[in-house]
Amino acid sequence: MDYQIIETKERLKADLEAAARGNRALTAAHGCVLVNLMGSPGAGKTSVLLRLVEALGREYAIGVMEADVDSDVDAKTMAAAGVRVIQLHTAGLCHMDADMTARGLAAMGVEGLDLVFLENVGNLVCPAEFEVGADLRMMILSVPEGDDKPLKYPLMFTISDVLLINKTDVMPVFDFDLAKAEARARALNPAVRFVPVSAKTGEGFDAVAALLREAVEKKKVRHEDH
Amino acid sequence: MDYQIIETKERLKADLEAAARGNRALTAAHGCVLVNLMGSPGAGKTSVLLRLVEALGREYAIGVMEADVDSDVDAKTMAAAGVRVIQLHTAGLCHMDADMTARGLAAMGVEGLDLVFLENVGNLVCPAEFEVGADLRMMILSVPEGDDKPLKYPLMFTISDVLLINKTDVMPVFDFDLAKAEARARALNPAVRFVPVSAKTGEGFDAVAALLREAVEKKKVRHEDH
Repeated sequence: MDYQIIETKERLKADLEAAARGNRALTAAHGCVLVNLMGSPGAGKTSVLLRLVEALGREYAIGVMEADVDSDVDAKTMAAAGVRVIQLHTAGLCHMDADMTARGLAAMGVEGLDLVFLENVGNLVCPAEFEVGADLRMMILSVPEGDDKPLKYPLMFTISDVLLINKTDVMPVFDFDLAKAEARARALNPAVRFVPVSAKTGEGFDAVAALLREAVEKKKVRHEDH
Repeated sequence: MDYQIIETKERLKADLEAAARGNRALTAAHGCVLVNLMGSPGAGKTSVLLRLVEALGREYAIGVMEADVDSDVDAKTMAAAGVRVIQLHTAGLCHMDADMTARGLAAMGVEGLDLVFLENVGNLVCPAEFEVGADLRMMILSVPEGDDKPLKYPLMFTISDVLLINKTDVMPVFDFDLAKAEARARALNPAVRFVPVSAKTGEGFDAVAALLREAVEKKKVRHEDH
């Protein structure tokens, strides 16, 4: 009985690793940066994306893949912001994997895009386990969720390149210690880029835009070298 | 290849259904109500439990199973509140299933308890898919998460008997429409018991305590009938 489960898992794992490599090859061929944006339901993924489109939309051609268990409310919002958008329904699944991401990239088309965001399913656990082939893994922890979350959901904090602390505007009404949150995240991931932001007021988005700009320019240089 | 996956899944499903029946039989034998408490990270599951222990701890013997991917911060908090507590580590898994719940119940012991809470892993997707054999499925949606969550995570709202809207105290600083949240939840689940609460101020907990009292008394009558 057991060996069947293992065999299935290994086959699936190998397939997903191949799909992630395929996604990397595709975005490299087009000099386009893929960002995997993760966080709990309500952490502010869509609002953060709207701010980033506002900050970078004049410099770069941006695409957004909205992954949801159901609904297309986020895709409607993003389409209204004037970027290339596709809605992906996971049909109950709690995360995006590399294969689903490959289908999304193919259906949306990355030709002519500089920056593609995958807005993952709202979930602080499962998406962390699935490498989709992104250049940057960006997670959002929002102030109302609490500064203890790195202790309770360590994997997401460990695998993320960028950690945004969103909703800093409501800091006064919540018992959230920014220094504690940063120390707990750095204990798991010393190199993480830690950026407090407020999608409501716009605070902190210059810094996020700068690090995305850096990633896009670096990938363009590599692309042009070929 | 395919039939192996199906076989594995069906075996697992049958095992979990048997474990859920076993949990129901165990709690029935002890006249004890099992509540599966679910919600996103930071929705306020532990704070809500502390309020319920405060409201019901003099009438009933209460047990709490704290399920976390990692850490034991919640178990420490609950133990300080003077209830029987056990910490369950899911070792990376994003939900509790009936078999893990059975192990928790056995390790904690339900003898002499009237009410047992399973604080599930913080996740608005996966725990909804796993029936653990609970008498009541209680979910928490917190105001900062937004009133659109029933549209985006429909299964959790569909399978819950009780929906608590927590953090009503911060309603003034968030754009959350209580009537919209209720209408969206009822469209999926007309019979859901909808209770706005604030674990910070204590608002609404009389109503939650009343419905838990009702569940305990009903189960005690059934237990004494045997």
